[in-house]
Amino acid sequence: MKLSDYVADFVARLGVNHVFMVPGGGSMHLVDSFGKNQKLEYVATIHEQGGALAAEAYAEYRNHFGFMMVTSGPGGTNAVTGVATAWVEGSGTFFLSGQAKRADMIGTRGVRSMGHQEIDVVSVVKPITKYAVSVLDPNSIRYHLEKAAYLALNGRPGPVWVEIPLDIQIAQIDPEKLVGFEPDNSEQPAASSIRTAVAKTISYILASERPVLLVGNGVRSARAVDIFQKVLEKVRIPVLLTWKAIDMLPDGHPLYRGRPGGIGQRGANFTQQNSDCIIVIGARLDLPSLAFDHQGFARAARKIMVDVDPTEIRKMQMKIDLPICSDAGVFLKELLQQADVLASYYPVAWLQRTENYKKKYPVVLPEYHNTKSGFINSYVFNDILSEEALATDVITTGGAGACSDILMQTWKVKAGQRIYNVPGIGCMGSGIPAALGGCLASSGNRTICVDGDGGFPMNVQELEVIRRMNLPVKFFVLNNDGYGSIRSMQKNHFAGHLVAADSKSNFTLPNVRRVAEAFCIKSDFLDDTSKIRETIRRVLETDGPIICEVMVSPEEAIAPRVSTVMNAAGVLTSKPMEDMSPLLPRDEFLQNMAIPSLED
Amino acid sequence: MKLSDYVADFVARLGVNHVFMVPGGGSMHLVDSFGKNQKLEYVATIHEQGGALAAEAYAEYRNHFGFMMVTSGPGGTNAVTGVATAWVEGSGTFFLSGQAKRADMIGTRGVRSMGHQEIDVVSVVKPITKYAVSVLDPNSIRYHLEKAAYLALNGRPGPVWVEIPLDIQIAQIDPEKLVGFEPDNSEQPAASSIRTAVAKTISYILASERPVLLVGNGVRSARAVDIFQKVLEKVRIPVLLTWKAIDMLPDGHPLYRGRPGGIGQRGANFTQQNSDCIIVIGARLDLPSLAFDHQGFARAARKIMVDVDPTEIRKMQMKIDLPICSDAGVFLKELLQQADVLASYYPVAWLQRTENYKKKYPVVLPEYHNTKSGFINSYVFNDILSEEALATDVITTGGAGACSDILMQTWKVKAGQRIYNVPGIGCMGSGIPAALGGCLASSGNRTICVDGDGGFPMNVQELEVIRRMNLPVKFFVLNNDGYGSIRSMQKNHFAGHLVAADSKSNFTLPNVRRVAEAFCIKSDFLDDTSKIRETIRRVLETDGPIICEVMVSPEEAIAPRVSTVMNAAGVLTSKPMEDMSPLLPRDEFLQNMAIPSLED
Repeated sequence: MKLSDYVADFVARLGVNHVFMVPGGGSMHLVDSFGKNQKLEYVATIHEQGGALAAEAYAEYRNHFGFMMVTSGPGGTNAVTGVATAWVEGSGTFFLSGQAKRADMIGTRGVRSMGHQEIDVVSVVKPITKYAVSVLDPNSIRYHLEKAAYLALNGRPGPVWVEIPLDIQIAQIDPEKLVGFEPDNSEQPAASSIRTAVAKTISYILASERPVLLVGNGVRSARAVDIFQKVLEKVRIPVLLTWKAIDMLPDGHPLYRGRPGGIGQRGANFTQQNSDCIIVIGARLDLPSLAFDHQGFARAARKIMVDVDPTEIRKMQMKIDLPICSDAGVFLKELLQQADVLASYYPVAWLQRTENYKKKYPVVLPEYHNTKSGFINSYVFNDILSEEALATDVITTGGAGACSDILMQTWKVKAGQRIYNVPGIGCMGSGIPAALGGCLASSGNRTICVDGDGGFPMNVQELEVIRRMNLPVKFFVLNNDGYGSIRSMQKNHFAGHLVAADSKSNFTLPNVRRVAEAFCIKSDFLDDTSKIRETIRRVLETDGPIICEVMVSPEEAIAPRVSTVMNAAGVLTSKPMEDMSPLLPRDEFLQNMAIPSLED
Repeated sequence: MKLSDYVADFVARLGVNHVFMVPGGGSMHLVDSFGKNQKLEYVATIHEQGGALAAEAYAEYRNHFGFMMVTSGPGGTNAVTGVATAWVEGSGTFFLSGQAKRADMIGTRGVRSMGHQEIDVVSVVKPITKYAVSVLDPNSIRYHLEKAAYLALNGRPGPVWVEIPLDIQIAQIDPEKLVGFEPDNSEQPAASSIRTAVAKTISYILASERPVLLVGNGVRSARAVDIFQKVLEKVRIPVLLTWKAIDMLPDGHPLYRGRPGGIGQRGANFTQQNSDCIIVIGARLDLPSLAFDHQGFARAARKIMVDVDPTEIRKMQMKIDLPICSDAGVFLKELLQQADVLASYYPVAWLQRTENYKKKYPVVLPEYHNTKSGFINSYVFNDILSEEALATDVITTGGAGACSDILMQTWKVKAGQRIYNVPGIGCMGSGIPAALGGCLASSGNRTICVDGDGGFPMNVQELEVIRRMNLPVKFFVLNNDGYGSIRSMQKNHFAGHLVAADSKSNFTLPNVRRVAEAFCIKSDFLDDTSKIRETIRRVLETDGPIICEVMVSPEEAIAPRVSTVMNAAGVLTSKPMEDMSPLLPRDEFLQNMAIPSLED
């Protein structure tokens, strides 16, 4: 059997339906085999970055594999941002690359490149992959593929890269004789230690008055969203979700209290900060989510942290009272087992108090409806969009900046929705590829992408694939004349000295609707506040792809957020997380506090 | 003094006029300082890949520095293809990146990312840079900048990467107290050894009947193009140029005999292969230029190879009779010194014979003028375009594929023209960024970019920068419905099984003229053979940027080329380099041979 055919079969057997690719000479046999495989559909993107980010989103949506196949040299380096995204966001994105034949590879020659279009891409991606290997023996192909597939999804998921030189691609192999990969499971924590840890967690909850669950994407990676939801039937305490876990509970869930963060929801931050016992499950608590302050996070609470990656717990700079290195699913299953102990635990006052936080501090304020003529308020827009979106819709964001921040603050989730975002790496330009990957991963569900005018053009070439496949992707591109976040940063910290931030500082962006036209995609336009809902409906009901430009004021600010001040050493210091800007009247603020405020 | 201001001053002092950048939070102080520096103009690209490739082209045009500034995380990974291009093509491209503050960096924590948008990009680019460093002590800034600058241009040029964390960017330094970098020049070869090597080279020439000079880009890197041209006044032997050295001699130079290669010129290959003494200067002889066969290269010739990088000489798999590890300029200066010994050496018959090869085998054949209606022959097109181009024009190609291959085969160079191409890495998508970088590097000269329809959309977003700055870039996009090289490869080696090659195999590309319109750039169209010259003139005479779509038959083949056959093991074996396809009648072929043909 030809080795490249074996690779295509292997991928098909993993249950993947689509493989993203850009063909090339260095991967020619792989391209041929994948093209011939009846069980796989190949999706040819225009640029490897588009394909890599689409595969990453595909992996995240399915919580399974996404595949991107590239050729040697620039084909590989073009995919690096997709690798980095899968690395930080934790998805099982599988990269296959071609390479010059073994005899032509750099090896120990010391030259920069030997084979045609050769770059030692395995060394380049090694620091940001769980496994990166060049297959130098045809008979090791099964081992490397199985090992890569295992590592991609087990433990904390992450990207893997398998490079296959041309003469290996065409080698004849006997699949029966190939050696497989046997994972070493000896390091799994013993069931007894999880039992003890869960019992201790429960005892902490029982001893607390204001417990909170903060849940992150590790629960999804562990395929434990269902179990988590079942746990909530027995463990009745307030629940907060991270941005990556945004869609794990519908907005109306009785225990759901919002999404905290440096940019977040005021009510959620009060809930988090006033807690006396916080159980963090599968959330790595990155710096923006903590407003860059480990010590200040839920500072009055006992902290329990459950993470499959021990380094993520060890990195924390505050005391973690109960560190539990475990797969989130294993932990939640055991918690469900033991949860009857909590049958009579029901912190009514605290549940009521946190519910009040949520109700009292909606993100979308009444005054947001009074915008300057010709501009739409992004909060109002996202609010209405989330009302109009269906439970079956796939939602994606532009990856970084106001377009994703505001969606994450505002969106009212419906059960069943899958919402893709990359807050860890904050990769601008992921909007179009993510819509492509998400739509295909959902087998063609309607897909809504809210992008910004800065990120939208970064992988604009992939609109061609959306058009080619006539995918039902509804793009809303928020046009605020440049980089909103950069402008705001330069106004706050550089006395308004704008550099490459907008059209007044030597930076311009292509016209959104003209771009739509270039790609033969329908377009729409929204700059009238009274027409938000009707425009959204018209766009969502349009067949096939469509791009709607939404005019947003360049002055629009992100709120609420934990404000930062730059000290003389250039270090940004933050207010306490509960004290978001715009600041509340001090009386009102203090009334909300169950713990001492920092100034008291 | 604020450190970021020092960095901007440093860059300005190097004589750079433009810095390409995409701003970000991780590089905020650098962005501010570069924006304030009066001697630098910042050019904000839409995507870091566009900026990185523009900086690379800028570096190559000026044979000096090109600067690209990026932020942390995806800002860095987006630039990796530019790094790889500078690595393989050998240009002094200088990357500056921001990073999270030191306290937030991954360090030894073992996590994938700690700071906001943190990726350990220094480790990622280390395998493909001459120097990659994170500046962790403010007082080391001068040392690292000077070392990076030194390494970027000295020896074989290449990319360098200096990462500067946020708290370092804002640190106060006293420039007077900073320690600089002192290069260690102890490894320079002694002048006496160069004298001896040149004397030996001359003795080889004197002993030969059919000597040839094969000159590559190392001569330009050594700033020795002038000396090389002076050498030719005294060393009167046939000269061949590599693709990267294409513009070092005008087409009419009496000693110029063409550009050999696997895809090359038939006459040049006859000259190279029939030589009995070949002196290779600053050309690394990559595999495509040798039709993938080291042993077959000038197989009857004594070989002298001059390269500043010893690994490039050592990698060769044939015998190099006289390896000379030296800067090409040092070698050429010494050759000029000693060249009077060759005053009476003038191999008339050989010069005549090689001149005949060149005349007898033009690349553009008469039948190329009879194309199918609605299609333009790329050879005829490039031929006329090179006639119409001015000596002051900057010329760029799309980086890989037929658009660059055919230009390299066909172009008739005028003295003064600078022609950018990246044949080593073969990076598709470099056309638009290279036009941007080249045009700015030339201080605004008219720039001609010949791109393909496959590569053109890969960095299409940067058209916005071309439009913003109203640069006089004249794009010709050859539309052959997809990837010509992939289609040809799949026809030849995969029995015509097309995968992702064109509109018949699940691959499409955006419409070129609609794209022009989207970016508010004028467009033109050419599909009528009788109108080639008038269309070219019209386009070249149009003010500002313009994009002309040129319809090319999908069936058009690249010729002449050394044909390859795939054996059962998937290894491509080539015909001898002199025996290019379409094959000559055997009699005619044999008449051209001064050495035994391989079958004899």
